Amino acid sequence: MNYSKTFQEIYNELQRVEDIGQVANYIPELAHVNPNQFGVHLITVNGEYFAFGDADVKFSIQSIAKVFSFVLAYSRVKSNIWERMDLEPAGTPFNSLVQLEYDKGIPRNPFINAGAIVVCDILVDELASPRENVLSFIRSLTKSSTIDYNPLVAHSEKKSGFRNYALVNLMKAFGNIKNDIEKVMDLYFSICSLEMNCKELSESFLFLANNGIVPHTGEKILSPSRTKRTNALMQTCGFYDEAGQFTFKVGLPGKSGVGGGIVAVHPEKYAIAVWSPRLNKKGNSYKGMLFLEEFTTKTKLSIF
Amino acid sequence: MNYSKTFQEIYNELQRVEDIGQVANYIPELAHVNPNQFGVHLITVNGEYFAFGDADVKFSIQSIAKVFSFVLAYSRVKSNIWERMDLEPAGTPFNSLVQLEYDKGIPRNPFINAGAIVVCDILVDELASPRENVLSFIRSLTKSSTIDYNPLVAHSEKKSGFRNYALVNLMKAFGNIKNDIEKVMDLYFSICSLEMNCKELSESFLFLANNGIVPHTGEKILSPSRTKRTNALMQTCGFYDEAGQFTFKVGLPGKSGVGGGIVAVHPEKYAIAVWSPRLNKKGNSYKGMLFLEEFTTKTKLSIF
Amino acid sequence: MNYSKTFQEIYNELQRVEDIGQVANYIPELAHVNPNQFGVHLITVNGEYFAFGDADVKFSIQSIAKVFSFVLAYSRVKSNIWERMDLEPAGTPFNSLVQLEYDKGIPRNPFINAGAIVVCDILVDELASPRENVLSFIRSLTKSSTIDYNPLVAHSEKKSGFRNYALVNLMKAFGNIKNDIEKVMDLYFSICSLEMNCKELSESFLFLANNGIVPHTGEKILSPSRTKRTNALMQTCGFYDEAGQFTFKVGLPGKSGVGGGIVAVHPEKYAIAVWSPRLNKKGNSYKGMLFLEEFTTKTKLSIF
Amino acid sequence: MNYSKTFQEIYNELQRVEDIGQVANYIPELAHVNPNQFGVHLITVNGEYFAFGDADVKFSIQSIAKVFSFVLAYSRVKSNIWERMDLEPAGTPFNSLVQLEYDKGIPRNPFINAGAIVVCDILVDELASPRENVLSFIRSLTKSSTIDYNPLVAHSEKKSGFRNYALVNLMKAFGNIKNDIEKVMDLYFSICSLEMNCKELSESFLFLANNGIVPHTGEKILSPSRTKRTNALMQTCGFYDEAGQFTFKVGLPGKSGVGGGIVAVHPEKYAIAVWSPRLNKKGNSYKGMLFLEEFTTKTKLSIF
Repeated sequence: MNYSKTFQEIYNELQRVEDIGQVANYIPELAHVNPNQFGVHLITVNGEYFAFGDADVKFSIQSIAKVFSFVLAYSRVKSNIWERMDLEPAGTPFNSLVQLEYDKGIPRNPFINAGAIVVCDILVDELASPRENVLSFIRSLTKSSTIDYNPLVAHSEKKSGFRNYALVNLMKAFGNIKNDIEKVMDLYFSICSLEMNCKELSESFLFLANNGIVPHTGEKILSPSRTKRTNALMQTCGFYDEAGQFTFKVGLPGKSGVGGGIVAVHPEKYAIAVWSPRLNKKGNSYKGMLFLEEFTTKTKLSIF
Repeated sequence: MNYSKTFQEIYNELQRVEDIGQVANYIPELAHVNPNQFGVHLITVNGEYFAFGDADVKFSIQSIAKVFSFVLAYSRVKSNIWERMDLEPAGTPFNSLVQLEYDKGIPRNPFINAGAIVVCDILVDELASPRENVLSFIRSLTKSSTIDYNPLVAHSEKKSGFRNYALVNLMKAFGNIKNDIEKVMDLYFSICSLEMNCKELSESFLFLANNGIVPHTGEKILSPSRTKRTNALMQTCGFYDEAGQFTFKVGLPGKSGVGGGIVAVHPEKYAIAVWSPRLNKKGNSYKGMLFLEEFTTKTKLSIF
Repeated sequence: MNYSKTFQEIYNELQRVEDIGQVANYIPELAHVNPNQFGVHLITVNGEYFAFGDADVKFSIQSIAKVFSFVLAYSRVKSNIWERMDLEPAGTPFNSLVQLEYDKGIPRNPFINAGAIVVCDILVDELASPRENVLSFIRSLTKSSTIDYNPLVAHSEKKSGFRNYALVNLMKAFGNIKNDIEKVMDLYFSICSLEMNCKELSESFLFLANNGIVPHTGEKILSPSRTKRTNALMQTCGFYDEAGQFTFKVGLPGKSGVGGGIVAVHPEKYAIAVWSPRLNKKGNSYKGMLFLEEFTTKTKLSIF
Repeated sequence: MNYSKTFQEIYNELQRVEDIGQVANYIPELAHVNPNQFGVHLITVNGEYFAFGDADVKFSIQSIAKVFSFVLAYSRVKSNIWERMDLEPAGTPFNSLVQLEYDKGIPRNPFINAGAIVVCDILVDELASPRENVLSFIRSLTKSSTIDYNPLVAHSEKKSGFRNYALVNLMKAFGNIKNDIEKVMDLYFSICSLEMNCKELSESFLFLANNGIVPHTGEKILSPSRTKRTNALMQTCGFYDEAGQFTFKVGLPGKSGVGGGIVAVHPEKYAIAVWSPRLNKKGNSYKGMLFLEEFTTKTKLSIF
């Protein structure tokens, strides 16, 4: 099937919808992005791909990177990571601290900030050079060697990341952070600063549509069972307080970031990345959500 | 494929697992059930079916019935039901009241108690004889005319349902209950008291695996799009505080009840109901969860 | 000392302050009161008294009555009432339900609604004719036989009291309400509907300034120690979420009601009641608070 | 009146009560104190004083010091400090973070940790050498020049103070901390590390019983009105989650610390300090509370 035409159609329809979203502005690096850029890239498990618009423009993938760090921990760590975090949806952001307090420092899942910080704590224990190892891992999932951190973004995130410091300190008070806080947070903010384009993003998530195997290298990242579980986790926890909404309207497992990127996976079929910088009130790309909703409706390719 | 053999195998394996669950005991009618009963029934969209154990024994389906009342409201009501409830997972039970307070009386989704009570309020407005109409609707989904409410169960639930009365009163204080509280709660407790067996349960959910159409009658209950959305909703919200766990381990949309029943749907393929009365700490059937996890692992039939 | 002149002075000053408060309007009986009425009455332990303005006009004393029901339970009940409620300030109203949930149905103190409902549950157990006995008790504290319930107010409160029903049902779910909910709530809403004027109110609180003895009859209501403790409790818990504010600015133990009344006690000296129907955002009389602040400042008669 | 005899009597009675409290053990410096020490010191506004037991032994005054930093800010700062903190009791410790979240970074009062940290932030802005200035201020309230910080205690508090860092970061996220976090926390932990004995403590609080004037120097620290207000604040907020309990049983404004010290003030009469290291579950000295309850009962010297 040729998706290029579908992309163009949906894009044209979306041109008629006013973009009521707002670009993330809590750090200058995100605030200054051109908000009218729009890119899509889909790649199938058979190697076909379909690009549209600004599919080659790099952007800050932000929380999407939490999937990479989680998969790395999930694939490498022998101890039971689920003793240190749960795998349930998280409820409203308002509850983030009270939930952590109520659950004695155990985050609800690895894709909320608190959980991703615990994942970083695990990686600091597990990896020789965490920052470098995470980057190599991500590059190995794609054909691109230009994927990299943006130190300016990491620095800005760190300078304004007081709420994340509140989370890590509360978890440390409960004994759920083992390493030095600064070491953990440096890794965390680095990972959030990763820059990729839609092409690289869809490539890097393709193993999740392919039973855990990177198609172009044949490397096995996760077992089929753990692959399914990672997808299931994205389905219930991948969109902040809008996981239900995304599941309901798009019907695919996926992950979003405040840089305006969304990546979604159709098991056995494809991975798709879309990028549109303006965010809805829940912090997900406004037009990206609409695009994917329309795409799975038109192609009837929801998993449900 | 012949699932009967698979059912027997998994059952044999589970015999070796100690059942650490507890039968629900907050009302005598649930407490007095024989806890060692175990039934499974699977029915495919092509009309094949596979029964095992106590598949013909009726039990109290409890919260599973919330799917029926939701579907009825979703299919009949022209107004936007999503103004009166959200469709996001609900977090811990501890939060049920505070979440409702924080969200000004809007429940997180139609499958938690608060949401199901709002659905009943909608049905009281919408239907001529709500109690009878809901029952006819459910019977019409199956080939069984013996499905019925259990008035003793409804009465016991009502007598001990103080927490549900706290919820409905709080929502009424916020203006999100339109009708007389007793009228709404009578319907709510009746629906929770429904008794069905695994055979009837799997039949009655089969339209959700069949694009919204009841296979044996051809009746269209929901559009394909709304069918997918209902499945998506079960996926993220169908298991109290264990929706993530069930999605992660079983990988199918489904719904459980404190009577020990679980029903799950594989879109385009089948509906399956399992019943084992002992519950884990989250209120879901302990062996039922294990059975379905093992079933989707063995058959590799997760949606992810 | 002649307080009449002081009353007039403060009243004149307050005339120059815009009354930004709002009359309680959740039931018609409160909404329709003339908001410009203003009354004060002070009575000393030696029997001197000073009236000002509408000191003889009856109004709905609302939550002030919670002191009477508490004192009655505290003086009559042999069992330890503190096993069923705490005596700590309550924090924000937002927390009322979550606090009750967290503390497993034990209210923070007897002066918040949940606590006053538990007090009513105790009185239903303890008294032969609770509604009549409470009324006789209050009349016995004053020289007035016209003090009475207002059944219209009680009825309106009950009809709109969904939040109070949420509280009582939650406590019943935790086992902290022993009697039939309607019986308890009928007493609760009756007590809230009491009508008194400033003269009667100051008289009825005078025993709290007089070591527990009603001056004009010599009757001992509470021991000196329990009298001090009741005053202490009013100090920390008498003003909803503004107990700190009132303690800070007025410096006397007291109790307010949404009818616009406030009564305060200076141990060993006097009781004073003030009434002005417009309420600040926390539900306390706007000008009543200002009047008492000015009064204790001018007379230097704070307990601190 | 000679209080020495009363002290001895109460002490003898308390010898018969098992001390079920526990010494604070979250830092070694507190854990290693001899738990059987017991001291009392009372000083009247007329200069009489009465010592008992270990009244001259220095101990870690911990949170008692929050009164000194608050008074210093209250007396020096021209801006409205109440825009940055409230003056209401705080509810349960469980709520500390959620309350701060709900109130957008505004602490409930200056005597909980969050509030005391905001006070430190104010002092960092206001004072040339905050650490030294606070110390000089405290010394000026007493006749003692040996009062000092304990750097080991400050260091240990800082190393284990993750929960306090969670609080300060959350407030910084809301914009309610103006200065560098480390600078603020260094001052905060220094102040908590202050060591004084009962004699010095009672002397240093005597101005609060004397309309704001230090008796032995005549220096005016606060106006009479602000003195009363500070006492009122201690009354409602001085004992963590036990302010109501202390008010109810002791009936004097006061402040406690996890070092086992309690200081209380009887306006116009005296200040009293008691020290007994074992703490009840709420973090207040177990025998110290009992001693003061017995003392105000025997002497009938409650303010209520």
